[in-house]
Amino acid sequence: MAKVRAHNISTSLDGYAAGPAQDLENPMGIGGHRLHEWVWGTEFGLAMIGQQGGSAGIDNDFMRAGVDGIGATVMGRNMFGPIRGEWPDESWIGWWEEEPPFHHDVFVLTHHPRADLELTGTTFHFVTDGLADAVERAKVAAGGQDVRIGGGTATIRACLAAGLIDELHIVVSPVLLGAGERLLGGPETDGYAVIETVPSDTVTHYRLGRA
Amino acid sequence: MAKVRAHNISTSLDGYAAGPAQDLENPMGIGGHRLHEWVWGTEFGLAMIGQQGGSAGIDNDFMRAGVDGIGATVMGRNMFGPIRGEWPDESWIGWWEEEPPFHHDVFVLTHHPRADLELTGTTFHFVTDGLADAVERAKVAAGGQDVRIGGGTATIRACLAAGLIDELHIVVSPVLLGAGERLLGGPETDGYAVIETVPSDTVTHYRLGRA
Repeated sequence: MAKVRAHNISTSLDGYAAGPAQDLENPMGIGGHRLHEWVWGTEFGLAMIGQQGGSAGIDNDFMRAGVDGIGATVMGRNMFGPIRGEWPDESWIGWWEEEPPFHHDVFVLTHHPRADLELTGTTFHFVTDGLADAVERAKVAAGGQDVRIGGGTATIRACLAAGLIDELHIVVSPVLLGAGERLLGGPETDGYAVIETVPSDTVTHYRLGRA
Repeated sequence: MAKVRAHNISTSLDGYAAGPAQDLENPMGIGGHRLHEWVWGTEFGLAMIGQQGGSAGIDNDFMRAGVDGIGATVMGRNMFGPIRGEWPDESWIGWWEEEPPFHHDVFVLTHHPRADLELTGTTFHFVTDGLADAVERAKVAAGGQDVRIGGGTATIRACLAAGLIDELHIVVSPVLLGAGERLLGGPETDGYAVIETVPSDTVTHYRLGRA
């Protein structure tokens, strides 16, 4: 049975998945980049930005698990780009430009209709009928493989609250942000439990599943 | 130089140091006991309740570090007992009854004056002049040893906010509470950083110190 999974959702020790005051200059909020420093120690993470080096090992394995067996992705609109409100035109094609790393169908949650956007190996679909519809369409598009919830934080929380997610991989970085966008802490995790804890040299990985 | 330290402050993965709806039947709030299950796997923890067994190892070492070199303790009133408001009489002598485990002077924060309470090996002093005064008196009483901030959560947060604490040991248990009393997440940790992460088989220990 195909699963719906989220991976490599980094948070601070004080629970923030993004820092405060997110904007174009600080897309992860002030200090938010510190949550993801562990990624740049991995082979997989460096390969994402066209660099060599980095380590194999626990962190790298978790990065890889976020793509292995994934056939489609669902993401919130902010993960696709910084534009809010109506699409002014079709010139914004995503943070990744001509060659997105997905290589499958990606369903972008939005209130504003837009035609499918077909790029090299990846097609973006803009879904205006809500999260459950996006996940359902992604399951069909995944053709038996799993669906990844790409983020951001609000989309992950909404998936938990709606019980749409089967597995959530959280990475706690040993930093304190003091403010920002909180990932956990509310009733949306009712029905979920920590099923595995895996420490690495840099961070602690937690896998949440259905209780 | 003597330090002010807090130890073995357990939180859930979603950041709660106590569950919701604390009362006499659930002094740690609903589900709050799950934060402390790791303690009952240690030799030190079981010895506290007069039992044998338990393991040596990482968790046990951290439990022990909470008493080694400590010469006095400061605690919030709720850690001393369930009574709120004026002391009706002097019959409540603390959760620990005749033989408290401290064996040194303990300074209890309260708005309501009460005479010193001398029990076997431990004297409780009731401090009405605030946190900074309690810490100062505890430093004198500790005679060169360190001062422990016993808790609870509000007292720890107040100590961080006032910069009164030198070291805070947090234990993240792999449980989700969904609500309760939050330990971290605000500006009170400005000036502090995670200085060590130590995973055990059951929990993850974090040591916070001055940044």
